[in-house]
Amino acid sequence: MNAAEIRSYIREVPDFPRPGVSFKDITPLIEDGSAFHAAVDLLARATDDLDYERILSAEARGFVFGTALAYRSRKGLILARKPNKLPRETVAATYQLEYGEDALHIHADSVTPGTRVLVVDDLLATGGTARAMCQLVENAGGKVAGVAVLIELAFLNGRKTLEPYHVVSILSYDAGE
Amino acid sequence: MNAAEIRSYIREVPDFPRPGVSFKDITPLIEDGSAFHAAVDLLARATDDLDYERILSAEARGFVFGTALAYRSRKGLILARKPNKLPRETVAATYQLEYGEDALHIHADSVTPGTRVLVVDDLLATGGTARAMCQLVENAGGKVAGVAVLIELAFLNGRKTLEPYHVVSILSYDAGE
Repeated sequence: MNAAEIRSYIREVPDFPRPGVSFKDITPLIEDGSAFHAAVDLLARATDDLDYERILSAEARGFVFGTALAYRSRKGLILARKPNKLPRETVAATYQLEYGEDALHIHADSVTPGTRVLVVDDLLATGGTARAMCQLVENAGGKVAGVAVLIELAFLNGRKTLEPYHVVSILSYDAGE
Repeated sequence: MNAAEIRSYIREVPDFPRPGVSFKDITPLIEDGSAFHAAVDLLARATDDLDYERILSAEARGFVFGTALAYRSRKGLILARKPNKLPRETVAATYQLEYGEDALHIHADSVTPGTRVLVVDDLLATGGTARAMCQLVENAGGKVAGVAVLIELAFLNGRKTLEPYHVVSILSYDAGE
């Protein structure tokens, strides 16, 4: 199954979560065992040449592709969680929301100095969350090996926000798509 | 890697999230690529004889093992989400919290009549969340093929709460462990 076939499983939901936004609903893709497996394999092949030891993904939807890729590639997975979810000492990075800000935490011992980490998410929009994840890695002393996403909303220029990190996406959408 | 070896990666955190509770921290297990891979394979072998088409897991930590198992077994994964996260029509089930209640939703078309669904979570405690997931499946017209968890806190009798569903766990803990 190639990228175009995988793309056909993603459903556009107009005006969600607010008017004017066309939400990319990945649930029909994930619910199809063959399509989901193929999407993870494409993401794996697109990142196989990157040198990394662990994957970092943020709750909740980010865990879906991060976890499957970690299993496929036999890498460890670091969970980036909202505040007060992790039981031990953490490091944090904040990111802007439309109104206010939010934070992501990882356990302080999840990244040791020099650990090479691949940041994985389902969707790259403006890049705020991915950038916070890169900062988490660096705040803990690690190195960002790259950022890999299934879907890139290219018209929101998240790739620019993430410079100079290496960004890999499987499906790219332009405005109005 | 056998179950005892996998168990050695799980860290006990005393008095989290509140005094008297010994939290089972799975992050060291997930962060080790080999241990995580082996844990998912054990879960797969323990459920290979169950007849199911889709896996259901709840956000956020539940996605970790649900997703990896879905990839491993080439099954589809249904995401059970907190209210207002899914963009289309949903069905819901509620469950009790210590104070108040919460709800889990799935898209109404994720389960069609007769769909056989395996409920997967990282941890079985009192069984409230898993029971709500079973109800979600049945509210949508599906059949529960079983409940599979990595960790079972046997002294909390979640297995009893889940009768008559078939429950599979990889690691079982008694009180004080």
